[in-house]
Amino acid sequence: MTQQSPEPLTDPALDPARAPSLAGVERAAAKVAALLPPTPLLPLDIDGVTVWCKAECLQPVGAFKIRGAWHRLSDLTAEQAAAGVVGVSSGNHAQGVAWAAKRLGIRATIVMPGNAPAMKLAATRALGAEVVLYDRVTESRDAVAAKLLAERGGTLVHAYGDPWIIEGQGTAGLEAEGQLRARGFAGFDKVVACCGGGGLTAGLALALPDAEIVAVEPEGWDDVTRSLAAGEIMSVEDMAHPTECDALQTPETWPINFAVLQARGVRGAVVTREEVRHAMRVAFEKLHLVVEPGGAAALAALLAGKVAPGAATLVTLSGGNVDPQKYAEILAGY
Amino acid sequence: MTQQSPEPLTDPALDPARAPSLAGVERAAAKVAALLPPTPLLPLDIDGVTVWCKAECLQPVGAFKIRGAWHRLSDLTAEQAAAGVVGVSSGNHAQGVAWAAKRLGIRATIVMPGNAPAMKLAATRALGAEVVLYDRVTESRDAVAAKLLAERGGTLVHAYGDPWIIEGQGTAGLEAEGQLRARGFAGFDKVVACCGGGGLTAGLALALPDAEIVAVEPEGWDDVTRSLAAGEIMSVEDMAHPTECDALQTPETWPINFAVLQARGVRGAVVTREEVRHAMRVAFEKLHLVVEPGGAAALAALLAGKVAPGAATLVTLSGGNVDPQKYAEILAGY
Repeated sequence: MTQQSPEPLTDPALDPARAPSLAGVERAAAKVAALLPPTPLLPLDIDGVTVWCKAECLQPVGAFKIRGAWHRLSDLTAEQAAAGVVGVSSGNHAQGVAWAAKRLGIRATIVMPGNAPAMKLAATRALGAEVVLYDRVTESRDAVAAKLLAERGGTLVHAYGDPWIIEGQGTAGLEAEGQLRARGFAGFDKVVACCGGGGLTAGLALALPDAEIVAVEPEGWDDVTRSLAAGEIMSVEDMAHPTECDALQTPETWPINFAVLQARGVRGAVVTREEVRHAMRVAFEKLHLVVEPGGAAALAALLAGKVAPGAATLVTLSGGNVDPQKYAEILAGY
Repeated sequence: MTQQSPEPLTDPALDPARAPSLAGVERAAAKVAALLPPTPLLPLDIDGVTVWCKAECLQPVGAFKIRGAWHRLSDLTAEQAAAGVVGVSSGNHAQGVAWAAKRLGIRATIVMPGNAPAMKLAATRALGAEVVLYDRVTESRDAVAAKLLAERGGTLVHAYGDPWIIEGQGTAGLEAEGQLRARGFAGFDKVVACCGGGGLTAGLALALPDAEIVAVEPEGWDDVTRSLAAGEIMSVEDMAHPTECDALQTPETWPINFAVLQARGVRGAVVTREEVRHAMRVAFEKLHLVVEPGGAAALAALLAGKVAPGAATLVTLSGGNVDPQKYAEILAGY
């Protein structure tokens, strides 16, 4: 008998199908805190109400994705690490995986859309990862990744459909909660998160079990919002729908994410291009932060009045990787 | 005999001519820490060498000036506070004074150049301060302020020539030193500071007595650099010399600042408009921070090779208040 399948998993904590948990978020938070200083939690006044912006655009790779990637890669067994990892990403998860892989001496291959922002492609390569391009409209990135894994072996590090990734992203919530309490406030009662596949949103939902959670998506890419309303996973209908929020262009959430979102009663909200652009300008002017379109969606929903703030609202400014020409064009739109 | 002069000061700590001190910086640091969370200390790789960027553009008013203003205004006597304050500033000190005054319930009047960036004028007014405009080329701002004080009374809160202001700005250095040590490094051996009148530079020189200090100025406004080389205070020669670094457009340093700079053997460096613009783009791309021209001068000197990094170099990214159109123009110059 030839060996057709990998050795059975003996440690349930290494099972990629395990459910993510608050305990997992707490374990991830300890690992993240040992490596990365907290990102600032910045107050912002919106019509007289203060909301709290978590400036994840200030992470070393310019996005929260470094959290989940570090939790995932640092938990690989020596054997898994030796075989390398394959990631799929529009750019921010790519940099997170590449950063963690470089630090751990692991070979990383990342499947990225050919139309990803130039700076995201360049930054991923600069971190030493091999980039394999695919066509976002005509190809399935998961299929491209599966083919690579079949050819080369290694471990898939999915951008959101993975318990480590969910737990790792959730560390932003625990960190923010600690920062808010250190300033003398009670904890968050509301979380407004930028949502692509639902990794960050699910992680925050686990991390802050008493808060109301809202997932914000860009127009045309509102599959999570529709899925939550329908009670079942629905896909993006037009994969060619234009959006500037490249970081949130995910065709559908995965069951592991959806289970968490549903259990927590998460609801969705959808923002327009102009609302996102306005939020980027507000972040520029009031916070002096460079926020990419996909990283400004949650703030956009609050500024546009599509989501009402709570008594203490956490807003994710989840990434800042935007090409300078695009950013200049958006700012000059004033 | 009529009373020609104010009542003699009975508390030497209230003497505006007293020398600023490290003990004063430490006292200021405790006051600042009670009010403002630390700004991030972000590593940046320059040709393989890590320097440490202090992101003061993330302060609530977008600049380090809030530190000195808070130290100064919170030390006013009840009588002084009741009479109000008068500040002179191109915009960042204005916002610092206005912010502190609002928080303490003190009336603030700020003398600002008519050609200050629109967002700085608007932000100062939005904080409740009265703005009195003057012409930067034909009028002396100190003379305008003196006239206001003679008419209205109150306390002058100078932008740099004041022991409280110097000590307050120095708190950025103590804070950064603590952050660096928390990451397992020894203290800073070099400090590269954006320099206008020398408030921040003198404060950092007091705060970090073992570090080499470099004051960086923009072309045409290099009076501190020339003064340090000459051993005496020299003024800017052409007050109409164009520069984008409005925050660093000070005609000359004051004796209280110069005494500290000279005693510490501070030297100057001068950067061009293009070097500053490049530094702003690097801060955008690598750090995702909006840095105004005057706030990018120190980084510009390092990037241009005009100042060599030390083993552990502190770089001030001192402000982020820049009009969006100007910022877009600079970014698009890529």
